[in-house]
Amino acid sequence: MSEIVLGPDGGLFQRLRGACLDEWYGYTRHDFVAQLAAGTLPEESFRHYLIQDYLFLIQFARAYALAAYKADDVADIRQAAKSLSTIVDGETSLHVRFCARWGIPEADILSAPEATATMAYTRYVLERGMAGDLLDLLVALAPCVVGYAEIAQNLMAHPATRVDGNPYREWLEMYSGTDYGAVAAGAAAALDRHFARRGSEGRLAQLETTFRAATRLEGQFWQMGLDRAM
Amino acid sequence: MSEIVLGPDGGLFQRLRGACLDEWYGYTRHDFVAQLAAGTLPEESFRHYLIQDYLFLIQFARAYALAAYKADDVADIRQAAKSLSTIVDGETSLHVRFCARWGIPEADILSAPEATATMAYTRYVLERGMAGDLLDLLVALAPCVVGYAEIAQNLMAHPATRVDGNPYREWLEMYSGTDYGAVAAGAAAALDRHFARRGSEGRLAQLETTFRAATRLEGQFWQMGLDRAM
Amino acid sequence: MSEIVLGPDGGLFQRLRGACLDEWYGYTRHDFVAQLAAGTLPEESFRHYLIQDYLFLIQFARAYALAAYKADDVADIRQAAKSLSTIVDGETSLHVRFCARWGIPEADILSAPEATATMAYTRYVLERGMAGDLLDLLVALAPCVVGYAEIAQNLMAHPATRVDGNPYREWLEMYSGTDYGAVAAGAAAALDRHFARRGSEGRLAQLETTFRAATRLEGQFWQMGLDRAM
Amino acid sequence: MSEIVLGPDGGLFQRLRGACLDEWYGYTRHDFVAQLAAGTLPEESFRHYLIQDYLFLIQFARAYALAAYKADDVADIRQAAKSLSTIVDGETSLHVRFCARWGIPEADILSAPEATATMAYTRYVLERGMAGDLLDLLVALAPCVVGYAEIAQNLMAHPATRVDGNPYREWLEMYSGTDYGAVAAGAAAALDRHFARRGSEGRLAQLETTFRAATRLEGQFWQMGLDRAM
Repeated sequence: MSEIVLGPDGGLFQRLRGACLDEWYGYTRHDFVAQLAAGTLPEESFRHYLIQDYLFLIQFARAYALAAYKADDVADIRQAAKSLSTIVDGETSLHVRFCARWGIPEADILSAPEATATMAYTRYVLERGMAGDLLDLLVALAPCVVGYAEIAQNLMAHPATRVDGNPYREWLEMYSGTDYGAVAAGAAAALDRHFARRGSEGRLAQLETTFRAATRLEGQFWQMGLDRAM
Repeated sequence: MSEIVLGPDGGLFQRLRGACLDEWYGYTRHDFVAQLAAGTLPEESFRHYLIQDYLFLIQFARAYALAAYKADDVADIRQAAKSLSTIVDGETSLHVRFCARWGIPEADILSAPEATATMAYTRYVLERGMAGDLLDLLVALAPCVVGYAEIAQNLMAHPATRVDGNPYREWLEMYSGTDYGAVAAGAAAALDRHFARRGSEGRLAQLETTFRAATRLEGQFWQMGLDRAM
Repeated sequence: MSEIVLGPDGGLFQRLRGACLDEWYGYTRHDFVAQLAAGTLPEESFRHYLIQDYLFLIQFARAYALAAYKADDVADIRQAAKSLSTIVDGETSLHVRFCARWGIPEADILSAPEATATMAYTRYVLERGMAGDLLDLLVALAPCVVGYAEIAQNLMAHPATRVDGNPYREWLEMYSGTDYGAVAAGAAAALDRHFARRGSEGRLAQLETTFRAATRLEGQFWQMGLDRAM
Repeated sequence: MSEIVLGPDGGLFQRLRGACLDEWYGYTRHDFVAQLAAGTLPEESFRHYLIQDYLFLIQFARAYALAAYKADDVADIRQAAKSLSTIVDGETSLHVRFCARWGIPEADILSAPEATATMAYTRYVLERGMAGDLLDLLVALAPCVVGYAEIAQNLMAHPATRVDGNPYREWLEMYSGTDYGAVAAGAAAALDRHFARRGSEGRLAQLETTFRAATRLEGQFWQMGLDRAM
């Protein structure tokens, strides 16, 4: 079975992904998503993940706000502002409704403390983006934004995946769907655009370090869900 | 003739305004706006102002992006994101069309360099907001956001103001109008909300310093327009 | 046996510490330090901790650089600059020599990747400090700076602590010593000074949240050492 | 008479300088320094400049703190920390003593408000550095750090310059001296080092924009001194 790899061939996303394949598979083929695809993931783990994913989303909104602040021209401000609005106006509400269907009241989500894995990833992204430039920030965001699409599309193509009757079917369909695929493709394209503008071969080593760290922290986010850890 | 003063009585805006009344009047009663209201402002000065105001707007979009980054909860992120979107999706286009009616092609706006007065005010706001907290940022933004409404409302109530046949009528009506009045009232209310949360009497002296500096820089922005200075 | 509590009575440090006593004891009475005091901590755990503590120190240098950037006057810039210089000119070299005595070559320290617990705590501090103001930053730093002195002084006063022949004696004596005690006292005093300037009762809840999070992340830093976790 | 140009041939400093020669000469051959070299600069202008230069120095200390925060490795943190310490421990005191010899009491310096030109340049540098990366920050600082040495060395070599009996002799000798020359050379070398690491031909246009803006704002700083403007 051939693997689905997102982003343009030879583009920055594929180069970064290829440079840390161990970490990438540690994240994208993590037990959490394997069990999710098989429908065997304990519901408590999924609920734990859902709550932390909401808190994660809030910090991601701040990361796109930071991207808008860091942008050099109106087009880039506009694009980051759109991502920010999509999260705070749309995705957070969707997430709350999705949680409700899983029996998690909104109050529980809003009062939940952040798990260490949530803090580690989100603050790493925000801090890397603040200390570096917009390219550093976008690279730190990429494992999440592009990775989720790659994970879900590969799972949907995988023989071990159960769709009918899978309690997590909605999650699988959302992240493997066309809409989210376009978001991921847009993020991969943005990487190349910003690399052309501010990148260089000399920056690659550090961008790989950032991508690797973010990928590893994403894997630990799944582990946190699996372990229901704080 | 009684003066129109915005913001809640005893609220932070009125306290800050009252603490630097000299600078406030130097800004709100500046020759630029007096001549604009009388319809005697040289059109070249207005055009110069319009172009710089566009560049100003871009930096203000970044300031609201910074406010979203600095926000502590979803409600505040959402509010700052809305201001950001309003600017980049609506106001910049409005501004370009308004400039077009004044005979300024879009290309001229986009290629114009920033005048020193534009840089001084906008970078002061952004930098103060980054070094301080969200309250510092909102205070630095207030002379602009609330001030424009106060200026325009007072001008519209002033006997020396000419509305009919005034080439600047549209500007006067926009900033004295209900829509913009609601924006200004919202900004003044936000000051009180954030002061209740993070302010204290001990912080007032420094907030006054920020408000005074921003007010003075706004006055110099008018002067730059009048002088067509770079 | 009476407990040693640092900072002025009724001062901000004691208020914050008292507000999250569970997390505080989870950190200050963690197995890692209990075993260290008893001399029973596995040397591999201590070595793992030492390497991560070096990486931690680099990020703490950046946090004091941020404090200097965020300072409002020369005295505060000077104080933060002094902390920064002390770390990068003195403590990092001391640390490298200390590691050498534990058989860890400098190259191993410099090439070590950051553990998640190291990233989580340091990036949380830096990011909180950037999003908030200098007071937020100092509160996020306090569990480390003041906590280490409180931990070591209490351990030295504890009957279960073995000094003679304890392989970790140097660590215990350094952090319980007069020099480090003065550093901790200075940090506690700075909290009160900045709280007087920018704090308020209204900010306490959020400062507690910051202090609690930082304390919890410090506890997880010990756990990382104990588990030799990445 | 041949012109003294600092920085390595073909290095980033010379490339940026060459890309905005009009602005560069507008700054380095400004009337303020020409009159200073001839000994004809009104003393009141020099005093005005000295006070603003002190306020400028405080913000430059913050810029080096920001450089330390933005640094990627210990060597760079250490170098920025050294610049920061040199300013806050040495240069500010030197400056206060220098002002005293010019009859300006320390209290007058500390209570002076910042002129717009001071705010415009310093906040531009800080904000550009925060939004961009360390290379952007160093480029924004370069016209000041390297430029002062180039200005003073060229003035000292110029036939119109009067050294004996020039009231500004100390200023000329300090900035044309070996010590300051080494500081300027170090800053030019750092530009090349960081350009090799994070730069690219694609970034040059924006780096030029930054260098040009900073150079122009430096020229306006001289003008502010000449005009004794606020």
